[in-house]
Amino acid sequence: MANIKPFTIDLDLLTGLSKSKESTKRYLSNMKGMFSDELAYENLLKQEDRLLYEFYELDLPNKDSDLLFGTSIVYPGKVGNEYHMTKGHFHTILDTAEVYYCLSGNGMLLMENPEGDWDTQQLKPGSAVYVPGRYAHRSINVGNEPLVTFFVFRADAGHDYGTIEEKGYRKLIHDKNGEIQIVDNPKWQE
Amino acid sequence: MANIKPFTIDLDLLTGLSKSKESTKRYLSNMKGMFSDELAYENLLKQEDRLLYEFYELDLPNKDSDLLFGTSIVYPGKVGNEYHMTKGHFHTILDTAEVYYCLSGNGMLLMENPEGDWDTQQLKPGSAVYVPGRYAHRSINVGNEPLVTFFVFRADAGHDYGTIEEKGYRKLIHDKNGEIQIVDNPKWQE
Repeated sequence: MANIKPFTIDLDLLTGLSKSKESTKRYLSNMKGMFSDELAYENLLKQEDRLLYEFYELDLPNKDSDLLFGTSIVYPGKVGNEYHMTKGHFHTILDTAEVYYCLSGNGMLLMENPEGDWDTQQLKPGSAVYVPGRYAHRSINVGNEPLVTFFVFRADAGHDYGTIEEKGYRKLIHDKNGEIQIVDNPKWQE
Repeated sequence: MANIKPFTIDLDLLTGLSKSKESTKRYLSNMKGMFSDELAYENLLKQEDRLLYEFYELDLPNKDSDLLFGTSIVYPGKVGNEYHMTKGHFHTILDTAEVYYCLSGNGMLLMENPEGDWDTQQLKPGSAVYVPGRYAHRSINVGNEPLVTFFVFRADAGHDYGTIEEKGYRKLIHDKNGEIQIVDNPKWQE
């Protein structure tokens, strides 16, 4: 028997924000150790604890028959020469996919799997990016406006943030004199 | 092991159309028996085999770890006093959910489950509608512009169109002098 009834959530197509629901917010202080330039991070944090990104989390049962969805908004800016980004995560049930549909802004989705394959896909308005199962994924704002995406994944997938927090990603996305560069992460370890 | 690589599809945020992929199209002639006013249907068909709606289908493995997604575009108009609509379907794996995010237009999502519960949710730009498992769902354009939605569901869910083709929905959405009316389907049988 169905125990969830049909429902609607408002998610603004331009800002990504909802009038009816509270977002989860990640400030600079929530991202310790995630950016490569630790000195730049500490100096910025002394000035202001910026809002880096926010997203919506639904409270549905963790069932494989259900889906979780919402928007993610990554605000523009850099920490050192590294663009604002989400923590990124694997799914706890590793082999579960996710879809990101870009509503506005200019960004990249950085992905890697435990087998060593990595990939980036551009996020621009109208791009629907498929993150296959097994791929950790992080949104990065390489533009000057908020990066807004609509995402959907299986409700039982779960989030594994710890692996990324410990190991980082194989690749970093840096700004070098206005050019977007994909560089090796010197701290990354197998 | 992952056998699908990350990929991107372009799906225009305004029109819903893709430049890189061919849509599946449903013309009036594909909808025989779906509209309640059969005489109006036959008369319209003699004049023109209109395009009622189109949508995108991805070719991914039917695995519960994958997701299928795309856009659906229902063009405005009526057959008799019934608004243009999709055939609608149950999922073959009945207890699998779907998400519809409305990008433009003005519509309704009509839903019902085998237990007899039915529901409508409004589709307007920025509305994200959750179709829980077990609910058949049909998009209906009650406005004057194309109704464009972005949808996501589990890749193994499958489509059961036959049940709706045989039994119809419990409810019909009609126009009565410019007002949207939800009326009982006289042909519906348990």
